[in-house]
Amino acid sequence: MPSSLKDMRFLIHEVFDFAGHYQALSRAQPGEFGEPPDAALIDAVLDEGVRFSEQELAPINRSGDEQGCRIEAGEVFTPTGFKEAYATYIELGWAGLIGDPAYGGQGLPESLSVFLEDLMCCANMAWTMYPGLSRGAINALNAHGSEAQKEAFLPKLLTGAWTGTMCLTEPHAGSDVGLAKTRAEVGADGRYAITGTKIFISAGEHDMAANIVHLVLARTPDAPAGTRGISMFVVPKFDLDGSRNKVSCGSIENKMGIHGNSTCVLNFDQATGYLVGEENQGMRYMFTMMNAARLVVGLQGVCLAQAALHSSMDYATERLQMRSLKGPVAPDKPADPIIVHPDVRRMLFTQRAIAEGGRALIYYTAQTADRFLHGEAADRERAGSLLDFLTPIVKGMLTELGFESVNEAVQVYGGHGFIRETGIEQHVRDARITLIYEGTTQIQALDLLGRKILMTQGKGLLIFLEEIKRVTETLREPLPELAAVLAATADEWGQLTLELSASAQQDMDALGAAAVDYLFYSGYAALAYCWARVAETAWRAQQQHRQDASEDDPYLAGKLATARFYFSRLLPRKDFHKQAIEAGPDSLVQVSDDALTAL
Amino acid sequence: MPSSLKDMRFLIHEVFDFAGHYQALSRAQPGEFGEPPDAALIDAVLDEGVRFSEQELAPINRSGDEQGCRIEAGEVFTPTGFKEAYATYIELGWAGLIGDPAYGGQGLPESLSVFLEDLMCCANMAWTMYPGLSRGAINALNAHGSEAQKEAFLPKLLTGAWTGTMCLTEPHAGSDVGLAKTRAEVGADGRYAITGTKIFISAGEHDMAANIVHLVLARTPDAPAGTRGISMFVVPKFDLDGSRNKVSCGSIENKMGIHGNSTCVLNFDQATGYLVGEENQGMRYMFTMMNAARLVVGLQGVCLAQAALHSSMDYATERLQMRSLKGPVAPDKPADPIIVHPDVRRMLFTQRAIAEGGRALIYYTAQTADRFLHGEAADRERAGSLLDFLTPIVKGMLTELGFESVNEAVQVYGGHGFIRETGIEQHVRDARITLIYEGTTQIQALDLLGRKILMTQGKGLLIFLEEIKRVTETLREPLPELAAVLAATADEWGQLTLELSASAQQDMDALGAAAVDYLFYSGYAALAYCWARVAETAWRAQQQHRQDASEDDPYLAGKLATARFYFSRLLPRKDFHKQAIEAGPDSLVQVSDDALTAL
Repeated sequence: MPSSLKDMRFLIHEVFDFAGHYQALSRAQPGEFGEPPDAALIDAVLDEGVRFSEQELAPINRSGDEQGCRIEAGEVFTPTGFKEAYATYIELGWAGLIGDPAYGGQGLPESLSVFLEDLMCCANMAWTMYPGLSRGAINALNAHGSEAQKEAFLPKLLTGAWTGTMCLTEPHAGSDVGLAKTRAEVGADGRYAITGTKIFISAGEHDMAANIVHLVLARTPDAPAGTRGISMFVVPKFDLDGSRNKVSCGSIENKMGIHGNSTCVLNFDQATGYLVGEENQGMRYMFTMMNAARLVVGLQGVCLAQAALHSSMDYATERLQMRSLKGPVAPDKPADPIIVHPDVRRMLFTQRAIAEGGRALIYYTAQTADRFLHGEAADRERAGSLLDFLTPIVKGMLTELGFESVNEAVQVYGGHGFIRETGIEQHVRDARITLIYEGTTQIQALDLLGRKILMTQGKGLLIFLEEIKRVTETLREPLPELAAVLAATADEWGQLTLELSASAQQDMDALGAAAVDYLFYSGYAALAYCWARVAETAWRAQQQHRQDASEDDPYLAGKLATARFYFSRLLPRKDFHKQAIEAGPDSLVQVSDDALTAL
Repeated sequence: MPSSLKDMRFLIHEVFDFAGHYQALSRAQPGEFGEPPDAALIDAVLDEGVRFSEQELAPINRSGDEQGCRIEAGEVFTPTGFKEAYATYIELGWAGLIGDPAYGGQGLPESLSVFLEDLMCCANMAWTMYPGLSRGAINALNAHGSEAQKEAFLPKLLTGAWTGTMCLTEPHAGSDVGLAKTRAEVGADGRYAITGTKIFISAGEHDMAANIVHLVLARTPDAPAGTRGISMFVVPKFDLDGSRNKVSCGSIENKMGIHGNSTCVLNFDQATGYLVGEENQGMRYMFTMMNAARLVVGLQGVCLAQAALHSSMDYATERLQMRSLKGPVAPDKPADPIIVHPDVRRMLFTQRAIAEGGRALIYYTAQTADRFLHGEAADRERAGSLLDFLTPIVKGMLTELGFESVNEAVQVYGGHGFIRETGIEQHVRDARITLIYEGTTQIQALDLLGRKILMTQGKGLLIFLEEIKRVTETLREPLPELAAVLAATADEWGQLTLELSASAQQDMDALGAAAVDYLFYSGYAALAYCWARVAETAWRAQQQHRQDASEDDPYLAGKLATARFYFSRLLPRKDFHKQAIEAGPDSLVQVSDDALTAL
């Protein structure tokens, strides 16, 4: 597995100065993290993460895909090596890295675990989902559980001895969670009996941990219809007295990808459940899990793009095929390496722009999340609005672009990319789910335009536009051409949002018809901000480097070249999306269903 | 399997008037087809094709994917039912539908077999590849084989008793066929001994036919280097005396998709081969096979898009999830069908625009191929230039858009689209190869811009632009807004080509950097032409219909709506590609390999 360590360090230390960021958080909330993690501690975590990912996870990525999970008499067995790798993960103490020290966590800032997840997911997405899902359960219990529930579940989740799940989807309730039919009936002892079927439950049953803690959405008998009548329950596979609870895995799905992760049908048959928080508040609690999970899925898009980028870059350098149209570049060889062809370079740059720009957006969002959770009181609300705004962009855009990116990698490989042996096509199959689960691109788009723009009068966007303006100023001297495009993009984004908001308030069809294009537009603009920050940092580092060295550092030159590529070849796609938004809903809705469906 | 019969009939009879077209060919070359096929005969072929596809091929599509092919001691076994379906296909006499009557063919025009392949491929792409590959061998032998070779091989290929293959690729010679190392040494009897390894040979070995006729590219000892030293040989699995020839299947590939088709490594070990035509002319002969094959691959992109469109249209109509943002549309149901959501409609329209517009482009190209092969002498060269020009567009663009389209279908299905059971994800896996084999999108793009534009001074394009102009005139009265956009697009296309040609002649990097974007630009423009023709026909039929009926025909209304959707929501993508072309090669090539690869 090719490591992204250099790119990660550049972003963490140079672009976003996470050590300084942790110090600022520590000043804002003294004692929050003990000593705030410094650069050396961050590097130590990264180094250990690389070792674990390369040595334990990467070797079982393809074999996990080939073997998949299997079910025997309700027991699910993960692929060879998954269990052992999880045991090592527990030993390393990473399950509790960011958890509350009161329950055994190490209390480190959340972004540190993003770096680890980044490394692990680049090596093995299907495996990384198992510990990843525990995080959602931990967050939900931490935020909304009773003291007794926290004491009962968090210590085990934070050692990693137990894992967690999110049980939302039912056969007829996917995007529309409010249609869930799973019933919860309270007993004399205050415990609930949960009955119903949940599907598509990732890591729903497996052999890696002693117990599985399901966070389940269900409906009490007198609950109002729809999302307002959903409650959340914690339903452990083994109840607190050690007895087997009445939740069982009926089957596992045969899927396009992520074969190493068990996707389960879970049957709850009067299973014992404990109400989390209050009845009918389940949707609100669910978003505590869901928002964090959405950022993780955005990260998955980036990680698969990273993995495929590294492989296809190597392949493009080694594969000899045809001569450069300008004449032989490697006349001593039977043909030139395909990296000489401009369109192969375009595919490689596209992957870099997505994978590295996407990672920058993830880290920026993680820093924003840290500020929301631990920052100065005055900054928290601001950071929260920005985080709310960025979440659907991270999830929706980085998964869409991640899928594009892994497909470009296949294309670089040509026929060899279609063969399972090279491992590249697995990235495409794994990536395909990221556009769907934890809310499809369409759901993200409605969240962005409906909730995050219209319902808040664009609060998060306005904060982000200010931030872009600040960065534009610092960019004006070193990279005036990028600064000008970035400034114009920010102005256009604001204007487009105003116009769209006006028409969407008049006509809900205008909202529905524009949402996905608005998501893409916003994604390209947000990535322009990220590439601007990366370019500015790279430019300053290059100036510094030139004082000591006679030749440019290729790493910094590559970063600047990728930034320029992004601005000249990818960012212009926003114009198409703007045009689609301005075309309005008529071509979609002023036609009868009969006409649309008459094939 | 949902049939596309209605759409096919509309294109065949109404838009392109194939019966009239066959009559015109027959007048140009009297006796060429006996009686030219009339509408009734075409319909009879279509009906039988539908029956065969729905009853024999569709039921073994998913099982073929699940089972795949297997190899035992060099023998390859196709999935259950493949052999039986092929036997039926032979019985129906379709293997010889368009072949030369002198060798047992029925001598019908080529486009008729395109309609059949369309139906079969919509039902089962992996199966359809087996007879499809015979076609390439038949074409090559027909055009370049000796009389003795024709007599030896064509009758068996035209009954379907034997199948064919194209053996081009070697481990180190993919896009660059000139790197092929397979050797051919002539013996005293004039026969050649062929030695080497070919990979990625579709239908290279299987259990469906008594013999397999390999068309093999190889190099004689004194041949010049590169493509000028390639010769073509016919190498039968069983030699003409019935003895087993020394060609064997070493292994079959484990692939992302098309599991039902055997993709073979073929080892030639002093195998007996017969030289086709002259030595060192193999590349030229190869293009006889290849150009037809490229149109077939374009058709595959369309067929997978069609199949996924039909499924996802049904799903969008049946799946209940959330309410329309404008309020309940089906208040008696727990939720509205998802087709009410504007973005779901966008995804359905996108699929229709691609699948139906793509089919129109295929049929138009097939008509052009008929004219090239059988038309009036004066028209043949013109049709040939147009065909040459359209071929890389059909192959490159319709596979790229086909892949987009099947992915939109998955997205309509949401989580259920990722599950193998629904059959939708198979389309994505099957479609992925179409962007690669018979020349990647990148190869098509270089063919289009390099060979078909620069080397001919845009001959094919100029003919096509005239054709667009003609259609624009007929469209001006009924659909003036589409006519105006089409006219502007044609002007812009011509201008862009002139400017690009000028810069590409100065700088080969400008050619390489622009080629793929130029392919996409051209593809969108060509589809605009097709949608204009469809819209014009639908509009006239609608006027006719309105004389007799009080309500519009939803089929015609749907066609017009999809045409309008294409012009307003998809065609504008050309602007992005124009911008990318105009951005020039600097961002790709003015950066060192060290910088590009420094990850």
